Amino acid sequence: MTVSSAPGKVYLLGEHAVVYGEPAVLCAIDRRATVTATARDDDRIRVQARDLTIDGFSVEYGDGVVDESANIDVPHPLIEAAVGYVDGAIEQVREVVDTTGFTITIESDIPLGAGLGSSAAVVVAAIDAATREMGVELTPEEIAQRAYRVEYDVQDGQASRADTFCSAMGKAVRVEGDDCRPIEEPPELPFVVGFDGSAGDTGTLVAGVRNLKEEYEFAADTVRTIGDIVRTGERAITTEDQRELGRLMNFNHGLLSALGVSSRSLDAMVWAARDAGAFGAKLTGAGGGGCIVALDPTPDTATALQYTPGCEETFRAELDHDGVRVESE
Amino acid sequence: MTVSSAPGKVYLLGEHAVVYGEPAVLCAIDRRATVTATARDDDRIRVQARDLTIDGFSVEYGDGVVDESANIDVPHPLIEAAVGYVDGAIEQVREVVDTTGFTITIESDIPLGAGLGSSAAVVVAAIDAATREMGVELTPEEIAQRAYRVEYDVQDGQASRADTFCSAMGKAVRVEGDDCRPIEEPPELPFVVGFDGSAGDTGTLVAGVRNLKEEYEFAADTVRTIGDIVRTGERAITTEDQRELGRLMNFNHGLLSALGVSSRSLDAMVWAARDAGAFGAKLTGAGGGGCIVALDPTPDTATALQYTPGCEETFRAELDHDGVRVESE
Repeated sequence: MTVSSAPGKVYLLGEHAVVYGEPAVLCAIDRRATVTATARDDDRIRVQARDLTIDGFSVEYGDGVVDESANIDVPHPLIEAAVGYVDGAIEQVREVVDTTGFTITIESDIPLGAGLGSSAAVVVAAIDAATREMGVELTPEEIAQRAYRVEYDVQDGQASRADTFCSAMGKAVRVEGDDCRPIEEPPELPFVVGFDGSAGDTGTLVAGVRNLKEEYEFAADTVRTIGDIVRTGERAITTEDQRELGRLMNFNHGLLSALGVSSRSLDAMVWAARDAGAFGAKLTGAGGGGCIVALDPTPDTATALQYTPGCEETFRAELDHDGVRVESE
Repeated sequence: MTVSSAPGKVYLLGEHAVVYGEPAVLCAIDRRATVTATARDDDRIRVQARDLTIDGFSVEYGDGVVDESANIDVPHPLIEAAVGYVDGAIEQVREVVDTTGFTITIESDIPLGAGLGSSAAVVVAAIDAATREMGVELTPEEIAQRAYRVEYDVQDGQASRADTFCSAMGKAVRVEGDDCRPIEEPPELPFVVGFDGSAGDTGTLVAGVRNLKEEYEFAADTVRTIGDIVRTGERAITTEDQRELGRLMNFNHGLLSALGVSSRSLDAMVWAARDAGAFGAKLTGAGGGGCIVALDPTPDTATALQYTPGCEETFRAELDHDGVRVESE
């Protein structure tokens, strides 16, 4: 039995524009997915999942046979998605080592489908746990690369390298096209996350930005402007200027709103954070619903979000310096 | 006794960027300020004001003496402002005709300080009424020019030509730097206005944009992008494409948010309008509070705004084809 974990992430700056080759900065947060892999005597895969936001389910398959016992609260597409990610992870493991089957148990405190990189964290942790269970230790970079292939397949070629790379490496990372690199000495960042309990449809949101960008030159300019904000933000990270990072987050949020990927609840949470004194706040991830991230060293933003209609969950999150790590083997 | 009226306005597209030489499009709306001018036997000025949002006041001055009887609900700075505008208007009238004093009565259904051009409408109507009362008829262009000088003085050189020109000319106008021109055949536009009951401080908001623009090249780019939206919007006006105008308004609002001039209540109203099916919605005017304008031919946006916390007043407004006009003389 081997247990590995990997962190979720927030986009500090740059989502959506990153699709068009602009840089983005992501930060790993101390919310993790933990995966236990146990080799089996047969070649079946048994997946058991538990998540803060669902009650859990288990699925076993192999020899063309699927047995499923799911809590009725778990939507079927969620099970299919989880199985797809784990399946893909095991496929990657089988490229490295000869294996038989696995029992895979997933526990996660990263809200699902919220743009916090829960699927990337599960895939990264699953690849690490299953390969270690078979006596092989991959580098974080190789895990990131293999996890990206899994997301790429499951998400029909729409996946970004950003989530899996950030989850595998931890800390903060910079992504520009296929070039992903760690930011070696990121400052401590006092993140506060607000989650509206919903999930935007990433494909639709990305397509919406693409349509705007193709129709209007000024929308393409706005995408480039987001890239400029990120480049400015990189300097603010180096100088640990949280107030400036906050201003840049606010500006970035406005441009994302212009591109049509904010929502009523996201804007309400962003304003709650700003009114509470946060240095800045923005949606994080694909938008259309999901999460905002704010910078606030005080407890005020979290308190304000607790009383904001439409905010279903709020938590502080620190930058997680660890990427994928083994918990026990 | 001569009665003239002049309309308020909304910015369809382009506020704030217009300060930096980008074009803007404003539309006169069928909410008007009505000014009655009656020549007096002495050289005193008596100002009586009534507005939907205040209970009214009267001030009389001349020979260095001011008598004031104001309803306690009227804030003192409001009286000073009103007197300043009327004073300036009479000064302009005295450049044209020899006059003695006037009794000036103001009635307005344009919410005050809401970014809907109430002061411009009052000045425009006052100049028209007082000159006509003395037997002189100015062209709308000359009234616009003289009203601009009044706003320029009262607002310490910060005034734009846009409000006074739009109020004097009616319909829709295009402003770019000092070049103001009517849009001859504007389409009917189904405006819905939501007002949060507050007023942002225009000077502070304009200064905030200037600071961002001076600090960050990407903010200057965003200002230029607003100009591009306006240029695109001019074509949409010509083709009467309300859906496209709505999309442009939404995009414009996002860029204004990025520039820091939106507010929690403005965003809440904008989302209420969009969720109600409006073609688009944006803040109008300086922002920081005040009004949003939406495009919706159905009653749904007005209904939604009535139930939106933070929206104190909502009304439909049609494009007003009349600028300044005499009501009776």
